Amino acid sequence: MAAEPVWSVDPRTGKPREQVAVEATADEVDLAVRAAHAVRGSLADRTARAAFLRTAADLLDEAREHVIEAADAESALGPVRLTGELARTTAQLRAFADVVDEGAFLDIRIDLPDPAATPPRSDMRRWKIPLGVVAVYTASNFPLAFSVPGGDTASALAAGCPVVVKAHPDHPATSELCASLLRRAAVKAGLPEDVVVLVHGFDAGVELIRHPLVAAAGFTGSVRGGRALFDAANARPVPIPFHGELGSLNPVVLTPAAVAQRAEEIGAGLAGSMTLGAGQFCTKPGFVLAPEGEDGDRFLAALTAGVSETEPAVMLDHRMRDAFVAGVAERAALDGVHSPVTPGAGGAHTVSAGVLAVAADRIASGDHHLLLEECFGPVTVVARYGSRAEISEVLSRLPGNLTATLHIADGDAADADEDAAPLLAELTPLAGRVLVNGWPTGVAVAPAQHHGGPYPAATSTSTSVGATAIERWLRPFTYQSTPQHLLPPELRDGNPLGLPRR
Amino acid sequence: MAAEPVWSVDPRTGKPREQVAVEATADEVDLAVRAAHAVRGSLADRTARAAFLRTAADLLDEAREHVIEAADAESALGPVRLTGELARTTAQLRAFADVVDEGAFLDIRIDLPDPAATPPRSDMRRWKIPLGVVAVYTASNFPLAFSVPGGDTASALAAGCPVVVKAHPDHPATSELCASLLRRAAVKAGLPEDVVVLVHGFDAGVELIRHPLVAAAGFTGSVRGGRALFDAANARPVPIPFHGELGSLNPVVLTPAAVAQRAEEIGAGLAGSMTLGAGQFCTKPGFVLAPEGEDGDRFLAALTAGVSETEPAVMLDHRMRDAFVAGVAERAALDGVHSPVTPGAGGAHTVSAGVLAVAADRIASGDHHLLLEECFGPVTVVARYGSRAEISEVLSRLPGNLTATLHIADGDAADADEDAAPLLAELTPLAGRVLVNGWPTGVAVAPAQHHGGPYPAATSTSTSVGATAIERWLRPFTYQSTPQHLLPPELRDGNPLGLPRR
Repeated sequence: MAAEPVWSVDPRTGKPREQVAVEATADEVDLAVRAAHAVRGSLADRTARAAFLRTAADLLDEAREHVIEAADAESALGPVRLTGELARTTAQLRAFADVVDEGAFLDIRIDLPDPAATPPRSDMRRWKIPLGVVAVYTASNFPLAFSVPGGDTASALAAGCPVVVKAHPDHPATSELCASLLRRAAVKAGLPEDVVVLVHGFDAGVELIRHPLVAAAGFTGSVRGGRALFDAANARPVPIPFHGELGSLNPVVLTPAAVAQRAEEIGAGLAGSMTLGAGQFCTKPGFVLAPEGEDGDRFLAALTAGVSETEPAVMLDHRMRDAFVAGVAERAALDGVHSPVTPGAGGAHTVSAGVLAVAADRIASGDHHLLLEECFGPVTVVARYGSRAEISEVLSRLPGNLTATLHIADGDAADADEDAAPLLAELTPLAGRVLVNGWPTGVAVAPAQHHGGPYPAATSTSTSVGATAIERWLRPFTYQSTPQHLLPPELRDGNPLGLPRR
Repeated sequence: MAAEPVWSVDPRTGKPREQVAVEATADEVDLAVRAAHAVRGSLADRTARAAFLRTAADLLDEAREHVIEAADAESALGPVRLTGELARTTAQLRAFADVVDEGAFLDIRIDLPDPAATPPRSDMRRWKIPLGVVAVYTASNFPLAFSVPGGDTASALAAGCPVVVKAHPDHPATSELCASLLRRAAVKAGLPEDVVVLVHGFDAGVELIRHPLVAAAGFTGSVRGGRALFDAANARPVPIPFHGELGSLNPVVLTPAAVAQRAEEIGAGLAGSMTLGAGQFCTKPGFVLAPEGEDGDRFLAALTAGVSETEPAVMLDHRMRDAFVAGVAERAALDGVHSPVTPGAGGAHTVSAGVLAVAADRIASGDHHLLLEECFGPVTVVARYGSRAEISEVLSRLPGNLTATLHIADGDAADADEDAAPLLAELTPLAGRVLVNGWPTGVAVAPAQHHGGPYPAATSTSTSVGATAIERWLRPFTYQSTPQHLLPPELRDGNPLGLPRR
């Protein structure tokens, strides 16, 4: 069987640019996993691990122009956005190097023996150990920060797990470039290059999740693809943890008091957030509950004006562009749905942003479930409610989300907005993060950040952003009554490495 | 359809004692889950939650004689063991009350806003919130500590999750008694009694895992039952976390130096550990790699002697007794397996402990996989190895375990046992806890304890024993830019509740 070629495609023209790789066969996936598994012991050296992560960041920075050019050529996201994304990516690698050095993630707990206790207590020393080879499935919409050198890879390596990355077909050349930089960084840090291995191909991704030596997986992508891999991970003879971020509608609720106070500001803000990056953010606000009546009309007019002024944009690939055009057409054709700004195909290879509107009672009564499914791209659905009860009825039908946003009266009027507290309570079970009077796009990397949420936002209770993302690739392990010379230095008497311990 | 009766059965006679309940229909399971879900908000009050857990411990202590009598009548575990188990259970409830009061489990992280940063940083406040209704599937072999008032229930309630417990058919009367005490304790602490609801019946357990309002599940039991529920939890439209402890072989490796030094002591120690509680502990050492030759023979003789002296014992129920008798017969009939002490049916309603022995190369070559499956009850399999390579070959075929035990030379000879370090490294991927020169039965509740391990020992990386068991029932949640009056007091400026925060 001839190897299937992997082409890098220009989304601005739809034309293939160059063949950059071939799809991995089942045997090649097996070799890739075995290669990564064979070198897992090398990552036990935390000093080398931290040096590796920092060197990887340095090499990415040094190759900045080349990396951004490669990513832009395959994603059309533009150099400004990609420059920021690369900075975020290298900052993330360095932050995980600091996490490795600091060692708190090892969560060391030591119980000294107490022969006088009844029953006598043994010497027990607990820490966390890496799970093994991690499979990383990369995202289309972040060719760097959620791809080969992204958060899943960085956190898995920081945990001491070798990584086999399944490249996203939207940016195979960028993936090859980044993987070669990571592998070079490994060697510079004294580690084998196979601590990071790259494979291409849909079938390769399926083989990967089934491989007996794969111990966990990280995924960022669609509900359909993510659920299929989640199911495969759980159907294995030995199931493995699958940390997936699959999809999110990111609902927004506007109280009557909020639109009475700031209809134009909210409309303009929403237009900016939902069209940012051609609406291709996982936190794009895709569903808005706004009141009927004059204030709500003013909000919708401002949203409409802002979206109308948005230039048509190139989406990440033509398959997504087709899915967006078909998805908005299907939604717009639903009974009672109208289009204040019709979204759809723009000029050559672009899409134009748009807004769909519907009466909330259509959704409250159980119709139009499609409007509660994420439509990837620059569109949002405005559901106009006539009563407080309709809001609750609609919210009760929503799936899980990364974020939920509440706009209430602000300033001196904030305390008087009686809808605020009960609505916040209703939004809490629906999301991993709630925002008040803000917009969900732009996920700050900060200690208090949580990027996750109820299914399908995430398949686990973990975060995929921030320092605690490392916890996904570790398991607790206890040594009982083990002589000093057989313990890892991290757990020996006298704390020779000066680690945080309890 | 008539309701199926639930009988309490005396394992010492096999005779029904009394009808204590009826099996829950699908509608009744739905009502049970809805009742628990309806009162979930009441558990938000951490003071009441802690008081409830302490009151539950007090009521169990007050009813001590009655509880132990009920548990003994259904389990035949005897009042001494059950007195200890009850003490452990109430200590666990009180320990989780302390965890609730202390509040570190909320894992609060606060990022204050920084308008001067580029981009400006928002106010973000993260903590952990309860998942919702937790389904608890109780264990046969711990009618208290891993049942209605046990660790899963205590940790879920401590997390703020109402609990629907599926009673184990081996102790329905004990379950009813404990559930009534827990419900009475809730009311005494000012909470609705439905924060704990009990259901009986196999079909009810299946309905429970599929219920849309069940948010997570805890399970302690067999691989077959646990895997079926794990699969059902993952096949739901909205999958839920399933924390199961399914089965464990608990391998033991004896180095040549260990048996040269302490063959008799090790043999006697193993005989005690494997027959403790009629071999019905999840950490029973069920598989032993011992060297061929004279020292190994001395070990086997000591083990044989110890096991031979063990009195026949009543198992938890007659189904288990039958499974044990059939399981050991099937194993003993394998080619090359002999029985230094033949295990099997004892006198009326009892079983006798025994030892099976086989050459390790039979297993190393891939035969006799059955010997690597847990056989619940007082039996262990001794595999005699002829070479160091055989040990590695056999270990590579082992499933995941709660524990792995290594016996090496001790005292001044310890450093000279060259097998120790590499064997410890080979055992690490196979277990959640390794012990050196000890025995795995008796799981101390201590901060450094880890009770879990690679599948099938556990279906997740969590522990089911100890304070961190609470983490299974929580998820991180972030408030962004949320006004003070809308934040829970735990997250407000000035830390009004004095909680640990970062």
